[in-house]
Amino acid sequence: MRPFTFINVASSVDGKISNEKRIQLRISCEEDLKRVDELRAKSDAIMVGIGTVLSDNPKLTVKSEELRKRRLEEGRDANPIRVVVDSKCRIPLDAKVLDESAKTIVAVSRIANSEKVNTLRRMGVDVFVAGDDKVDLKALVEYLYKIGVRVLMVEGGATLNWAMLREGLVDEIYVYYGNMIIGGSKAPTVVDGMSFDPPISLDLLDVRKLGRGILTRWRVLR
Amino acid sequence: MRPFTFINVASSVDGKISNEKRIQLRISCEEDLKRVDELRAKSDAIMVGIGTVLSDNPKLTVKSEELRKRRLEEGRDANPIRVVVDSKCRIPLDAKVLDESAKTIVAVSRIANSEKVNTLRRMGVDVFVAGDDKVDLKALVEYLYKIGVRVLMVEGGATLNWAMLREGLVDEIYVYYGNMIIGGSKAPTVVDGMSFDPPISLDLLDVRKLGRGILTRWRVLR
Repeated sequence: MRPFTFINVASSVDGKISNEKRIQLRISCEEDLKRVDELRAKSDAIMVGIGTVLSDNPKLTVKSEELRKRRLEEGRDANPIRVVVDSKCRIPLDAKVLDESAKTIVAVSRIANSEKVNTLRRMGVDVFVAGDDKVDLKALVEYLYKIGVRVLMVEGGATLNWAMLREGLVDEIYVYYGNMIIGGSKAPTVVDGMSFDPPISLDLLDVRKLGRGILTRWRVLR
Repeated sequence: MRPFTFINVASSVDGKISNEKRIQLRISCEEDLKRVDELRAKSDAIMVGIGTVLSDNPKLTVKSEELRKRRLEEGRDANPIRVVVDSKCRIPLDAKVLDESAKTIVAVSRIANSEKVNTLRRMGVDVFVAGDDKVDLKALVEYLYKIGVRVLMVEGGATLNWAMLREGLVDEIYVYYGNMIIGGSKAPTVVDGMSFDPPISLDLLDVRKLGRGILTRWRVLR
């Protein structure tokens, strides 16, 4: 058993999620950021890869006080659980994702430095170990289901999106196309890794204008 | 003076135009192929990069007999002029784009082998030389305008799309997003080359469902 899982990503028209220097760009508009916040508020956990933590240092919390309050009224934590996929346990101890605002799980593989793992545990972080040199994502999502996660939001980056899709662990994908072209053969895209052969088929669930861009929603077909 | 110029490209949801092996995939649906044929029929010239010729060997003609007939009735050639951007003049002499069905211009730079250039000219191909080691695209589109091209369709690939955008020679871009994820950090995307800093801004002109994917149309802002 695993949670209902969806990827959410903001992309340029040409499929890039940042430029080749991996500098975070403002691809989303205000309307889209509000939508993403609502998706977070509906989720039980939010998952990112270590690359995203290292380049963007996101907090991964619900920004709207009203939405946090509503969660509390429903008997949930104010914020979803934050899950960082970090095979080598490279997470900086001062990463915002490790702050007090929400529970955090760092998923590591067996090659992770055990001293670093212990330090994290002493900080109150839940460290989940699975997989030889890469995090066993199937084991991770099963663990998340077991601790009560029923809706899992994956917020990238390009490599985690790919690995989750490859393992067949994704049900839906939202892509917001911002009104820009970033370009660059080395810029990270919505899904990097290796090409799927054959490609993964999708079913279009919804498409609409949002701000100056387009919001699309797709079901992943098996 | 230059022609009104638009890029047309079929992309996966994650911005890829083929997989990392550069094997041509069927991204478009029937409905989209019909639309592309109509765009070709409305254009005075169709431009591609040599990479596209080498990997896909396209014919770049109007497929519909009816549309070709209509062009002839309007006093035009049955097919638009085919333009290949080929800095080093690598085009195979048996490329379909050099066949008899339409006029072809091969644009090369000054480093192109002059013997090969002469061979092409003897075959009746119009070889346009401009630029030291890369084709001077501005000079090329000015030449196209001078010989009567008012509407220019650019059909990729990733590097030509990038170079045309970088030179500020593109007015609009159509992206058809097919219902698939290709993935691959090395797969060619809608726009490769180097990242634009800042990104190129677009205005959304139109978005609609087409077949199982989405057709989008954007104006390139200066």
